[in-house]
Amino acid sequence: MNINKDYLNLKDSYLFSVIAKKVKEYSAANPDKSIIRLGIGDVTLPLAPAVVRAMQKAVLEMGEADTFRGYGEEQGYSFLRQAICGYYAGKGVALHDDEVFISDGAKSDLGNILDIFATDNTVLIPDPVYPVYIDTNIMAGRKIVYINGNVDNGFLSLPDGTINVDIIYLCSPNNPTGAVYSRGQLDMWVKYALKNGAVILFDSAYEIFIQDGSFPTSIYQIEGARECAIEFCSFSKTAGFTGTRCGYTVVPHELKTDGTALNKLWLRRQTTKFNGVSYIVQRGAEAVFSVEGLAQIKGSIDYYLQNARIITDTLEELGIWFTGGKNAPYVWLKCPNDMLSWEFFDYLLERANVVGTPGTGFGANGEGFFRLTAFGNRENVVEAMGRIKNL
Amino acid sequence: MNINKDYLNLKDSYLFSVIAKKVKEYSAANPDKSIIRLGIGDVTLPLAPAVVRAMQKAVLEMGEADTFRGYGEEQGYSFLRQAICGYYAGKGVALHDDEVFISDGAKSDLGNILDIFATDNTVLIPDPVYPVYIDTNIMAGRKIVYINGNVDNGFLSLPDGTINVDIIYLCSPNNPTGAVYSRGQLDMWVKYALKNGAVILFDSAYEIFIQDGSFPTSIYQIEGARECAIEFCSFSKTAGFTGTRCGYTVVPHELKTDGTALNKLWLRRQTTKFNGVSYIVQRGAEAVFSVEGLAQIKGSIDYYLQNARIITDTLEELGIWFTGGKNAPYVWLKCPNDMLSWEFFDYLLERANVVGTPGTGFGANGEGFFRLTAFGNRENVVEAMGRIKNL
Repeated sequence: MNINKDYLNLKDSYLFSVIAKKVKEYSAANPDKSIIRLGIGDVTLPLAPAVVRAMQKAVLEMGEADTFRGYGEEQGYSFLRQAICGYYAGKGVALHDDEVFISDGAKSDLGNILDIFATDNTVLIPDPVYPVYIDTNIMAGRKIVYINGNVDNGFLSLPDGTINVDIIYLCSPNNPTGAVYSRGQLDMWVKYALKNGAVILFDSAYEIFIQDGSFPTSIYQIEGARECAIEFCSFSKTAGFTGTRCGYTVVPHELKTDGTALNKLWLRRQTTKFNGVSYIVQRGAEAVFSVEGLAQIKGSIDYYLQNARIITDTLEELGIWFTGGKNAPYVWLKCPNDMLSWEFFDYLLERANVVGTPGTGFGANGEGFFRLTAFGNRENVVEAMGRIKNL
Repeated sequence: MNINKDYLNLKDSYLFSVIAKKVKEYSAANPDKSIIRLGIGDVTLPLAPAVVRAMQKAVLEMGEADTFRGYGEEQGYSFLRQAICGYYAGKGVALHDDEVFISDGAKSDLGNILDIFATDNTVLIPDPVYPVYIDTNIMAGRKIVYINGNVDNGFLSLPDGTINVDIIYLCSPNNPTGAVYSRGQLDMWVKYALKNGAVILFDSAYEIFIQDGSFPTSIYQIEGARECAIEFCSFSKTAGFTGTRCGYTVVPHELKTDGTALNKLWLRRQTTKFNGVSYIVQRGAEAVFSVEGLAQIKGSIDYYLQNARIITDTLEELGIWFTGGKNAPYVWLKCPNDMLSWEFFDYLLERANVVGTPGTGFGANGEGFFRLTAFGNRENVVEAMGRIKNL
């Protein structure tokens, strides 16, 4: 048998292992220093009480013959798909519940969705970027075209009419930059996709962090998006589900190519290669959308955004250029004094005992930039910013 | 953008929708008849108390800051991978815990594993078969070669030395036939795979139903299998997890081609396109392997096997040829009086008000055969067999 040779073209990701190694070495040499990690993309606050209660009830149901559930509905339970439709209705977006597919997370779906597209399609990926978009296309041997995010465009690259592509990745609020597309900017992307017959894969995993009502929280708030966009969202950052695992993908009925509805292809893919998410987890996810659940997760989001505010206030005070942090849990800053990303990493580790993520880990355009996240605890964030101010 | 045109080569599966339609029509015309369904492949008994207790504890942990868990270990929590290694040790199979990958189910992994193989590989699939093996390869445009299961070989096809293939699917105990390979037969398959440089994808989802200790419950009980086989298993039928969702895949370190370890490729695939199984579910799965958990699931398996016994006793009494039911939850019978599969379906529905699955739904060689499952409740199984005897 032969392996898929495209896998050999993947670069090993040493980013987080190199970070771990450097931190370990520094700690070993300086056991008296207390290191604060602001590099992690994982949440730290526990699940909301409403979610815990719903899952406890579901676990008990699974233990009783009368309420036990076997294989669930193919696209996910309708109680959850309808709750998601309700959430979208609150954004002014009308969805049919058979346009919503429940999954174990946005990352899985963002990778697996590629199954339904031809491998000779060309892919457009912004740089810097969440590396999964790149790796999943390398695995399939697809041609990738990059567009540049930089200080000039505020890391919000816009369509280039001279380039013809088939599949476009957008993430807003963005990981790693925290930058958020305006309605006008997303409208340009939708028009470009419609004109080129391209599909937009819209990663909205951080939509709940948007506080400024003028920014779109779903691509479907843009006219024409139902004909050209698939939206991926997740409970991971919304409701602290990074270890509980649930996400969803929206494929509108209007999205067709040569008369074939992508919704039907995705249904076929998922029913053949996926068996759905645990009933217990789906009940927990449903509880996120209850009045009580929404209030509780708002408390967590506010906490993380307040952390972000403490970071951005510090950067503003120090006159350091950054994006994000206002409507996003990520802050993307320009390394001071024209330092390179790893140079600044070492500087911050050694001088402030603070760990972040070098921007080069997210692509060539990340060189000279640095990512801090707001998912830590308050005390650590305050302490870290105090140390940075004292540098 | 273009779609993956291979999807257009998939046949729609009308099997279960046609069954549902026929049953609905019959019920509407005969509202006084009580219909018994022995066609379902889903379990009916609730989760074991030990599993429920473990998941309840895990849910509570997720609701407290001190015990909350975010992203888990990449291959699944080591507590679960080690429990699985312990279970395999009991079978006389030594595994390293980094050879075990936790997933949401065997079906997902059986489909997704194909990502790591070249699309020009030729696939060998027994007919009749679990349709997912076929569909996932059609989706990737792979060439499929079928081998025949029939009465002569007891639906246990053996390697044909004149055929050269790359990827071989085996399922034992088999779905849909319930037939179980002996050590000697699996040894022939392993030798054939090693000789041809092929990989065996071994679906052991029903291994726990094996009561006769002379049958292998893992492909790794066969010498040489670590160099040529990947094993897929699941908690779905073992512990009633069809709605709870957990499975695992074993990729031994010795399995290499051109020096590339398949274990590393699968790790790369899973870490890029999958984020793991809920912590709560993994704790439930771990509890399956506790002393208490194993005793409780044995109770359920014995219950299903007793159902199977009631079915096979009836068939023996009636002199109907069948496979399975002794070490498997499926009974695969030859339709009496040379009836075709759908003919027998109609006959059984109309004359005994019993629903099963026509063998043609599993491939051309299923014509003239019929599948009954042992996952129903006792009372229904007894009643159904009584009706069949009275025909």
